[in-house]
Amino acid sequence: MTNPTLKTDAYEYSMMSSLVESGLADKKATFELFARKLPAGRRFGVAAGLGRFLEQLQEWRLTDAEGEQLEQLHLLTPAGSTWLRGRQEANGGKLFSGTIKAYREGGLYSPYSPLVQVQGRLGEAILLETLLLSVLNHDSAVASAAARMTLMAQGRPIIEMGARRTDDAAALSAARAAYLAGFASTSDVAAALHYGIPTSGTAAHAYTLAHASELEAFKHQLKTWGQGTTLLVDTYDTPEGIRRAVEAASSFGYSGPGAIRIDSGDLAVETGAARELLDSLGATETRIVVSSDLDEYLMLELQASPIDGYGAGTRVVTGSGHPTAGMVYKLVEIEGRAVAKKSHDKTSVGGAKTPYLTATGEERYTVTGEVPADATPLYVTVVEEGRILPQPSLAETRSYCLQQLETLPQEAKRMDAGTPFRTAEPA
Amino acid sequence: MTNPTLKTDAYEYSMMSSLVESGLADKKATFELFARKLPAGRRFGVAAGLGRFLEQLQEWRLTDAEGEQLEQLHLLTPAGSTWLRGRQEANGGKLFSGTIKAYREGGLYSPYSPLVQVQGRLGEAILLETLLLSVLNHDSAVASAAARMTLMAQGRPIIEMGARRTDDAAALSAARAAYLAGFASTSDVAAALHYGIPTSGTAAHAYTLAHASELEAFKHQLKTWGQGTTLLVDTYDTPEGIRRAVEAASSFGYSGPGAIRIDSGDLAVETGAARELLDSLGATETRIVVSSDLDEYLMLELQASPIDGYGAGTRVVTGSGHPTAGMVYKLVEIEGRAVAKKSHDKTSVGGAKTPYLTATGEERYTVTGEVPADATPLYVTVVEEGRILPQPSLAETRSYCLQQLETLPQEAKRMDAGTPFRTAEPA
Repeated sequence: MTNPTLKTDAYEYSMMSSLVESGLADKKATFELFARKLPAGRRFGVAAGLGRFLEQLQEWRLTDAEGEQLEQLHLLTPAGSTWLRGRQEANGGKLFSGTIKAYREGGLYSPYSPLVQVQGRLGEAILLETLLLSVLNHDSAVASAAARMTLMAQGRPIIEMGARRTDDAAALSAARAAYLAGFASTSDVAAALHYGIPTSGTAAHAYTLAHASELEAFKHQLKTWGQGTTLLVDTYDTPEGIRRAVEAASSFGYSGPGAIRIDSGDLAVETGAARELLDSLGATETRIVVSSDLDEYLMLELQASPIDGYGAGTRVVTGSGHPTAGMVYKLVEIEGRAVAKKSHDKTSVGGAKTPYLTATGEERYTVTGEVPADATPLYVTVVEEGRILPQPSLAETRSYCLQQLETLPQEAKRMDAGTPFRTAEPA
Repeated sequence: MTNPTLKTDAYEYSMMSSLVESGLADKKATFELFARKLPAGRRFGVAAGLGRFLEQLQEWRLTDAEGEQLEQLHLLTPAGSTWLRGRQEANGGKLFSGTIKAYREGGLYSPYSPLVQVQGRLGEAILLETLLLSVLNHDSAVASAAARMTLMAQGRPIIEMGARRTDDAAALSAARAAYLAGFASTSDVAAALHYGIPTSGTAAHAYTLAHASELEAFKHQLKTWGQGTTLLVDTYDTPEGIRRAVEAASSFGYSGPGAIRIDSGDLAVETGAARELLDSLGATETRIVVSSDLDEYLMLELQASPIDGYGAGTRVVTGSGHPTAGMVYKLVEIEGRAVAKKSHDKTSVGGAKTPYLTATGEERYTVTGEVPADATPLYVTVVEEGRILPQPSLAETRSYCLQQLETLPQEAKRMDAGTPFRTAEPA
């Protein structure tokens, strides 16, 4: 496995070396991670990735050999390298001794929500930037898209099946993010094993094509996996496929297969016809699962169709048109002095923030630390002086996310292009 | 590291088990990987990922414990598991004993190019689907976008700096894909170390903000890294930043810093003014590097501007609007019988293909294996009966890609929306 400490932009190490030179590496700094906006038209975001970041932070250290490599690449000066080694020694072998507060994973976020706040020595805190952003930008993009699909699926289970349409390692993270945002399972075996996500398999067209006939293919699948299996019925002709599926099931004494899957065509038309045909053949218990470039918009269109489950791939793992959440990591305070970039189009707000929800559900923050008595704080401390605190399980994060989605006002659940239902603002 | 053999959709294993049941697992099958279309408006694609796939194919095997896990997940039947173990033993510990031919990595591809052809036992060949698609879909999406930026940069070096805007593991693959498509370097340390890609660091706004003044920040950076360093000049006010950068350099006796970076504003206006100001201050050798959501379109607009280098992040790692290449993996032949899915919108062409370029540069294939005497074959054998053949280095792949980009007709290098300059068709 790649040392996560190296999944870092070169300039983090070269800046750190410069900060050692200027005597600032040990100053107390606060960085905040936030998005200036949501993807165009989106009404809410779902924060994801924190648990995965903290898992990697457990391994946050450089070996002597790695430190030497960075010196050879001219990313660390000898003085920078010495400072790093000294910090690791002082921190009991770790390269981060600061404190991290964050919005809970699976929660909602808005433009300017200070999602993660990192406080600690400037030279240590600056190194976290790249990994923290990579993980949160990717996972939040997937979770935000997945959450909209969860809403539009109206309780129908969704299988995440996008592994083939994203990087092979990113596939695991995408499966995790989709699951925590309400998906029921993943097709990705590695993700299922690594994160304990339920998995399920159907069949591909190749399976049917390999057999002398569709009927043979279905019989062998039923014999192997029992009635519960899902038969893919659209390899040749969907109505014919459905007849063959029921025929194959009946040869084992079943009224029908557990489910059929349709992966092409106009799914509203196809599923209406399929339900009628299945019922007319007595396969009233057979469920209908659909796939084929499904996203939240198509799921909205299919709400009235007789569908029992979805498979979503490409669109969920690529964030449904927005594959990255556009979050940034900015220095907001150094030694108690608020700082902010002022030029042009990329402003930020200085000062270490304390975010909360007001009694009426508005998202606000203060830089004084004082919050109204009836406010709900949004920060949870996840790392305290370098010590990573116990984190919720993925199942707990998923429950929390589903509960948060329920709190959304009706207008935020709309799929037409809109504006964020709330924005984090100074109190 | 995750065993690549598990980065596989559940249904590959469950189908394999069914194929053992139906007696087809040992039949000789041919699968082909192709894209039905290029992303909307694109005129060519760059195939990437093959080397990274083959690297993982080296480790293509399941341990007994992993096999048992798959049985417990109900993805392998006991008979399927026995077949798998038997195959691994017969293949000297590997799970693939077939032959793979492919278009050379870094080469051009078109709609229906049979980019990769896998021949072997059906039960083995079907298992490769997910990993092969994940890697090629992701890497080709990035390389195809990167190649267009390479063309529009007209020889100016581009730094890939998108790690923070994609999954933390995908960042390594994206850096590799961008580099092979002509980028000069990457900001990602892990990618630099893993793939031997040159790396370079500048500085972020946080670095300047942390200092009492911009001048102090620049002086310490120059003292640490010498004249060659790149100073980020737009934290407060760009013209002021440029004056401070030259002032800081002159305090070390330099006429100017090696480079300045501008990361905001209208880059055509900013760089024009910056060049004039630098020259008026005597810093005629100081290069101007720009970043900030750069893509091929912005690079086209900036061709006449006094710019010496680009940094591209978000847009390259997300495929410039097309984060996945949409490739599929289809069974085309079994035991010499051509097969193809026929229903609705997802057709495929049956038969094992032999692709080539005609003497006039058209992309054609035959299913007879016969090609014209003056044709240029497009397939290279990369795996022969399970044995992975020596592959070109990443540097060689990069040279090949740059050479292929030179062969593009002028119309294919246009950035306005168009149609593919060629399509793979039957001879």
